Amino acid sequence: MFNTIGIAGLGLIGGSFGLAIKHNKLSKVVIGFDTNEENLNDALKLELIDIGASSYKSFSICDFVIVSVPPSQTAKVVLGLFEVLKENTIIIDVASVKGPIIADIKNSIPKGISYIPTHPIAGTENFGPRSAFRQLFNDKYFIITPINNITFAEKKVEEFAKKIKMKVKYMDAQRHDEVFAYVSHLPHVIAYNLVNLIWHKKENDEAYSFVGGGFKDFTRIAKSNEKMWSDIFFLNKKNILSAIDDYIENLLVLKTIIENNEEKKLLETLKNIRLFKEHLDG
Amino acid sequence: MFNTIGIAGLGLIGGSFGLAIKHNKLSKVVIGFDTNEENLNDALKLELIDIGASSYKSFSICDFVIVSVPPSQTAKVVLGLFEVLKENTIIIDVASVKGPIIADIKNSIPKGISYIPTHPIAGTENFGPRSAFRQLFNDKYFIITPINNITFAEKKVEEFAKKIKMKVKYMDAQRHDEVFAYVSHLPHVIAYNLVNLIWHKKENDEAYSFVGGGFKDFTRIAKSNEKMWSDIFFLNKKNILSAIDDYIENLLVLKTIIENNEEKKLLETLKNIRLFKEHLDG
Repeated sequence: MFNTIGIAGLGLIGGSFGLAIKHNKLSKVVIGFDTNEENLNDALKLELIDIGASSYKSFSICDFVIVSVPPSQTAKVVLGLFEVLKENTIIIDVASVKGPIIADIKNSIPKGISYIPTHPIAGTENFGPRSAFRQLFNDKYFIITPINNITFAEKKVEEFAKKIKMKVKYMDAQRHDEVFAYVSHLPHVIAYNLVNLIWHKKENDEAYSFVGGGFKDFTRIAKSNEKMWSDIFFLNKKNILSAIDDYIENLLVLKTIIENNEEKKLLETLKNIRLFKEHLDG
Repeated sequence: MFNTIGIAGLGLIGGSFGLAIKHNKLSKVVIGFDTNEENLNDALKLELIDIGASSYKSFSICDFVIVSVPPSQTAKVVLGLFEVLKENTIIIDVASVKGPIIADIKNSIPKGISYIPTHPIAGTENFGPRSAFRQLFNDKYFIITPINNITFAEKKVEEFAKKIKMKVKYMDAQRHDEVFAYVSHLPHVIAYNLVNLIWHKKENDEAYSFVGGGFKDFTRIAKSNEKMWSDIFFLNKKNILSAIDDYIENLLVLKTIIENNEEKKLLETLKNIRLFKEHLDG
């Protein structure tokens, strides 16, 4: 499908792309670079990539480039790559926030190069090249938030995503950031806050180390890569702050229901939540 | 260990006790009763118990009784059983809230009967006799919140819990309710509230049906038995309301950190949370 794919940033996502590309033979060769030397060495050792590049300069030979660096670095790395890429190259980024990154990039796209902002909805609580695995993307959504119209380049990226078994959706970037503030970023804020609260309780009192099944689920989320999440919180700040406000407003309603012993109302709410969950499970 | 164990309430917990008792041969016979006829029939069909009783009256032959009904029914069922139990019987309840239930019971304990309040920290998001399994309690904590001193009866209950592979801890009932408001009840409130919020968003906008890994963990919690959780929220109201206030206060601090772009502070907080999680994993 491509002659040379370049992967910028060899963490869980970048590394898993390397494995999926190689397994599905989507490129003659896969080159990779990471500013963290250990990550680069691990990626080579684990054969996530074929060739470790010494800098982004080598990416000039690529016809397809995936930028999977921390969200706060994404625009900078994409703009840097614009300096070295040859004509007709397609470059995608995979950051979980789209609007602010596109804003930094869209007026600097060189003629002949296609920049496609994307968000593969895939990940685990683990991070780094050692956590990469080739089935990470199977049956997951791959969201494309095109800058203008859907052209040949978007269609090519769509084809690429489908070849690694992803389900492709197009979405407006602003809307993407609003929706993901609720369905992904808010849950992380909520989980981080709970684990932080219990942790401080436990620091002063060992009795708080009894943690049941419910709480364990939260700690799994809270184990995620802190740099990535810190970047996401700041980049999507406006949407996340209003999601937090919305969350607190709803929590105060639930608190009042408990406070006033409104059993019928509470049972109905909890039941609806369970039915929604069963609906999600399909 | 016992001649006849009686189980009042044949849901996930009661049913799993039946299986664990039978597997470990802790009683010559296990009888059970549930006001829900379907549960009683299922429990018999699934062999969670040996004999289905037609009412609590038959529990007069038991030397050990486990009350595993919804928390709001617990005191009522225990008090009712006091009318029929013979001398030297030990009766335990297993509700997740202890203080208010003990308060309703402690002045009515008949001479010769031992009532021991307990809380086995075991459960799944499933409920009902069909979700029972005998390994539910393996390696989990079994908390005893004795009314007065630890006597022969508490020791006997401790021995019983250890025979089904549980780790026994003694704890003051008030303290139990304070701690579990944070480590178990609050996480459920938090998860319910998030799922409820996203569900209402999705009702008006299909785009909110993109749910990533993080959110899925929340829906697992929110799938739990609504009657049990509604009971818990009302019974442990005072502690849960103050845990909610504490949670919101902390969330507003986190919100301010995001609002003011305090990256160093945020990274440090998120990293500490991850280290706490790694500490919990041991």
